[in-house]
Amino acid sequence: MSFNARYSNQSARLNAGRDDAWQVHDEAVAMQQRGEDVVLLSIGDPDFRTPEPIIDNAVSHLRVGRTHYSPPLGEIGLRRAVADYETRCTPRACDPGEVSVFPGVTSAIYATLSCLLNPGEEIVVVDPLYVGYEPIMQALDVTVRRVESRAENRFVPQLADFKSVISEATRVVLVNTPGNPTGSIMPADLLRQLAAYCRQRNIWVVCDEVYSMFTYEQPHTSLRSAAEEIDNVVVIDGLSKSHAMSGWRVGWVIAPQTLTEHLGRFSAMSLFGSPQFIQDAAAFALNNDEYYVAEMCDRYQQRRDRVSERLDAIEGISFLTPQSGMFILVDISAIDADDVNFAKSLLGAERVSLLPGSAFGRSTRGHVRLSLVQPMDVLMQGCERLARFAESHQQG
Amino acid sequence: MSFNARYSNQSARLNAGRDDAWQVHDEAVAMQQRGEDVVLLSIGDPDFRTPEPIIDNAVSHLRVGRTHYSPPLGEIGLRRAVADYETRCTPRACDPGEVSVFPGVTSAIYATLSCLLNPGEEIVVVDPLYVGYEPIMQALDVTVRRVESRAENRFVPQLADFKSVISEATRVVLVNTPGNPTGSIMPADLLRQLAAYCRQRNIWVVCDEVYSMFTYEQPHTSLRSAAEEIDNVVVIDGLSKSHAMSGWRVGWVIAPQTLTEHLGRFSAMSLFGSPQFIQDAAAFALNNDEYYVAEMCDRYQQRRDRVSERLDAIEGISFLTPQSGMFILVDISAIDADDVNFAKSLLGAERVSLLPGSAFGRSTRGHVRLSLVQPMDVLMQGCERLARFAESHQQG
Repeated sequence: MSFNARYSNQSARLNAGRDDAWQVHDEAVAMQQRGEDVVLLSIGDPDFRTPEPIIDNAVSHLRVGRTHYSPPLGEIGLRRAVADYETRCTPRACDPGEVSVFPGVTSAIYATLSCLLNPGEEIVVVDPLYVGYEPIMQALDVTVRRVESRAENRFVPQLADFKSVISEATRVVLVNTPGNPTGSIMPADLLRQLAAYCRQRNIWVVCDEVYSMFTYEQPHTSLRSAAEEIDNVVVIDGLSKSHAMSGWRVGWVIAPQTLTEHLGRFSAMSLFGSPQFIQDAAAFALNNDEYYVAEMCDRYQQRRDRVSERLDAIEGISFLTPQSGMFILVDISAIDADDVNFAKSLLGAERVSLLPGSAFGRSTRGHVRLSLVQPMDVLMQGCERLARFAESHQQG
Repeated sequence: MSFNARYSNQSARLNAGRDDAWQVHDEAVAMQQRGEDVVLLSIGDPDFRTPEPIIDNAVSHLRVGRTHYSPPLGEIGLRRAVADYETRCTPRACDPGEVSVFPGVTSAIYATLSCLLNPGEEIVVVDPLYVGYEPIMQALDVTVRRVESRAENRFVPQLADFKSVISEATRVVLVNTPGNPTGSIMPADLLRQLAAYCRQRNIWVVCDEVYSMFTYEQPHTSLRSAAEEIDNVVVIDGLSKSHAMSGWRVGWVIAPQTLTEHLGRFSAMSLFGSPQFIQDAAAFALNNDEYYVAEMCDRYQQRRDRVSERLDAIEGISFLTPQSGMFILVDISAIDADDVNFAKSLLGAERVSLLPGSAFGRSTRGHVRLSLVQPMDVLMQGCERLARFAESHQQG
C-alpha cells in the first residue's frame, strides 16, 4: 500500500503552477547553463559587487564572534541605523522601536501581510504589481482587488482610481514606489491623500520602497514623510538593490510600535532572528552609504540613458523612461500584442531574455521588462539583438 | 479621529502573551544588562566560537562575490553536502533533490508544517516538547494532541502511547530526537514502528533532529534510517548546535521529492533564498566536520559529567543524565512543586536562571532545565548557588 501524500490547501495554491511569464526566464537560464550565448535581462539581481568596506565590516564581526542568536526584532544597532536613516531622509523622526528587521524584503512583506490580513479579507493593489506579491497573497488566501493604471499616466493611478476599488471589506492597500516594473515615482500629494483617505476608512497602507535609493531626475518621497498621520502607515525597504546586497537578505519594516511588536512575535515564531554579523554590516552600510549608493545610482542612470538612446532608434517599439530603479518597460504591442509570445520568440531567435509585462498584470500586457543589471557591453549586445528582431518582424 | 488598528487573528493568537516560563529568563537577561552577576543557564545558544576554518570559508566566499540571490531550495553545493552527510550517517542513500535549505531550523519547521497542515487539522506531539513548536502551532491554528510521557521512561513514550492519541483526524506526528529538554534518544525500534503505523494511517512523521550530532554513550538513530519506508518521513536538522553556528541560520529539511518541491514554493514565496556565502560555509562545515563536532561533543560531555557529579551531591533534587544534547532536566519537586515559583525564587535569591519545566508541557512540571552552554567555571558557580538555595530550603 502506498502512502497518499496530502498537503495543505495553502501549499496546493502555491503549487498551482508558475505562470507562463517565468517560463521564458527559466528557459533562458537553462540555455545559459548549457553554454549558449544568452543575454539575460529578465531579472533584478544587481551585477555590482557589494562595496568592499561593507564586506570588510562583515568579516571583522564574523572574526569577533558575532555568530550567536539575535533578538526577533533585530539587533538594536541596525534598528537604530534604520531609524537614523529614516530620520535623515524625512522631516519626521523615526524611533528604533518602530523598526523590525527581516531576512529580506520578501520576508518583511510576508510577515507584514500575515499580521494584518485574515484569509478572505481584501487587499487593494495597483496593477501592474511586482510579481513577488502574488504568491504571498495566494498563500494568505486574501481577496485581491486591482487598481488599473494607464501608460499615459506612467502607470500611476489617481486617488479616484483607488477610491473606486476600495470597499468596506478593504483592510490593506499595498503600493510600491518607486515602482517595479514601471520605474515610476508616486507623487507626494497622491501618497498623502491616499494615507489620509485610508486612515479615515480604517485601512492600513503598506508601501514597498525598495528602489527608494535609486532615483534619477526627481527625488523619492516616502509614504511615511508624505502622510500627515502615520498610525496606519507601514514602509518596507532593504539593502538588496541600493547596496548591491541582494544575497545578504536584509530588509526591514517601519511601522507603528504596536504593529512592530506583532511583527516581532511573527519573526520569533517563524525565523528566530537574522545573523548578527550581517546585521552589523548592514548597520555600517546604512551609516556610511552616501558614496556607494551615489556611485551605483550614477551607473544605473548611465545605463538607462545609453539603453534609452539605443531603444529610441528601434522602429515599432516605444518605452517609458524610468524615473528610478533598474528596469525599462518597453511597449512591444505594435510588433506582437501577446507579450509572452514576443518574449519566447525573441529568446528563440536572438537569445535575449526579457520578462513579459503580463507577469505584472493586465495594465502592462503588450510590454516587456528589460533589466539594467548587466555591464554596458552586455546591455548594448541585448539592444542590438532586440533591434534585429524588431526589424525582421517589420519586414515579416 | 484615531485609527483603529486591526491585526490578523493569527497575529492576535501569537500576541496572546508569552507565558510565565519565559519571564524568569527575560528578567535574568534584564538583570544581567543592569550589571548584576547572573548565572544564565536558561538558554540553548552554544558559548563556543564557530570553528575558525568555517569562518575563513565564509570570508573567502564573501570576497569572491558570493553575495547574490540564491535558489529557493538552496545552493546545490549545500544540498549535496547535506545529502552526502545523510548518506554517510545512514544505510540509505539521500539525493540532493530531497533536501531543502532554510534560514534555521525554526524556519524549516514552520515551512514544513505550513505545507502539511490546514487550520483546525490535528498534529500529535510528545509532551514535553521544545518551546518553539508552540507558537508555530498557534500561528497555523492547528489542533494539538499531546502524548504524555513519564520520567521513569526518560520521557520517551511507547508506541501504544502514540496509538492512543492518534486519531482519524491526525495529519502529522511531530517528534524530536535527541529530545529537548530531556536529552533522551528515541530507540530505533520505536521510530521504525511509529513510521510504519503512521504510514498505514496516511500520516506524516516529522522528526526534529537538531541535537543529532551530540550524543554521548549511545548513538543517535535518525527517523530516516530507522523507517522501513520513507515516503511519509521528514527529517529536520541544522548547524546551530552541532557547529556552534546558531547565529548563522542554517537549517534543512530532508523529505520526499514532491514535498521538497512544495517547500521550495513556500520558501520562494516567503523568503526568496538564503545568503550564498553562508550556504557555501555550511557546505564546507558539513564536508569537513568530524574534528570540530567531536571536540565540541567531548566538551559538552565533560560539562555534563562534572555538573552531574555536583548535582548528585545536592539533597532534595534528582535529575536525568542526558544521553545527548546540552541540557540537564532537574527534578526539583521535592523542594517546590511549582517550577515557575522555584525558578523565580532561585533567580531572586541566588541569581541563577533556569527554565521552568512547565514551559515544555505537563510532563515536566516540577522540573527545571539547566543549559550546559557556559564555560565550566560558570557552570560550577551555578551549581554552588543552586546547592545553597536547595540547602536553605531544606532547613526552611
